Amino acid sequence: MTIRDATDADWPAIWPFFREIVTARETYTYDPEMTEEQARALWMSPSNSPLARTTVAVDADGTVLGSANMYPNRPGPGAHVASASFMVDGRARGQGVGRALCEDMIAWARQSRFRSIQFNAVVETNEPAVHLWQSLGFRIAGTVPEAFDHPRLGYVGLHVMYRPLP
Amino acid sequence: MTIRDATDADWPAIWPFFREIVTARETYTYDPEMTEEQARALWMSPSNSPLARTTVAVDADGTVLGSANMYPNRPGPGAHVASASFMVDGRARGQGVGRALCEDMIAWARQSRFRSIQFNAVVETNEPAVHLWQSLGFRIAGTVPEAFDHPRLGYVGLHVMYRPLP
Repeated sequence: MTIRDATDADWPAIWPFFREIVTARETYTYDPEMTEEQARALWMSPSNSPLARTTVAVDADGTVLGSANMYPNRPGPGAHVASASFMVDGRARGQGVGRALCEDMIAWARQSRFRSIQFNAVVETNEPAVHLWQSLGFRIAGTVPEAFDHPRLGYVGLHVMYRPLP
Repeated sequence: MTIRDATDADWPAIWPFFREIVTARETYTYDPEMTEEQARALWMSPSNSPLARTTVAVDADGTVLGSANMYPNRPGPGAHVASASFMVDGRARGQGVGRALCEDMIAWARQSRFRSIQFNAVVETNEPAVHLWQSLGFRIAGTVPEAFDHPRLGYVGLHVMYRPLP
């Protein structure tokens, strides 16, 4: 598996699992009704910052297994904190794709001189993701109760997670 | 003091204290270099949601003392949580303007059937604001350490605060 910068040509391979993940409504606070064009803009150009970057994880055949994007979390006095989003194709789960994408993101954030990384809205019932971030050095700074409306589990919490970059 | 919906005609009265607050860099993670047009768009149209609303606090003479805006915090499965931002003219501090704006915002959120209110980035050293929100029923869900670069105090934390709307 290789992690590389995404190009416009990767979007058609990202869109099917992006759509599946967003319409499932289990892990992302995105509008499930968004159009493909809105999704492409959101994922491929996640910020006005010149630092913003979108990546893909590809296997030896060049098949896209997952994608990430990364950017300063906030402007001005918050611009020293990076953030990111990750999606893995359901057919490629359990192969370490999310871990590889996140390790690459951490390296990017360090090289880009960010002081820390913050994830703003990690669904508490998405335990594989919570445990993966924890294994990569992220801590739960706090949890907003009932901030996510899960289709099966009802109102569940959203974690704010962060990782210093010493 | 009255709280009412803002109109385009209120912007020239908001911009001076908006600019002062943002360029001070002590309480908002906004880009201090933003243009007036960017500031107007951000403050007067804070969200694509049809629910979004901007208000002003005015005294008996019609002078604008402060302003707030409010909107769903996130789309899709997060759209049942409201958020808001508040600014008070430095010359009107200590008169209960922030409290009146927030009480009005809480009433709006309840009427609009939100289930809770979340503030995403309250600077921990902005103690008057933290105490005001606490007195209005908000709790600190967590604090992200060193997420705000304060011009005098260095890296300080950002609180995530929330208030259920039972």
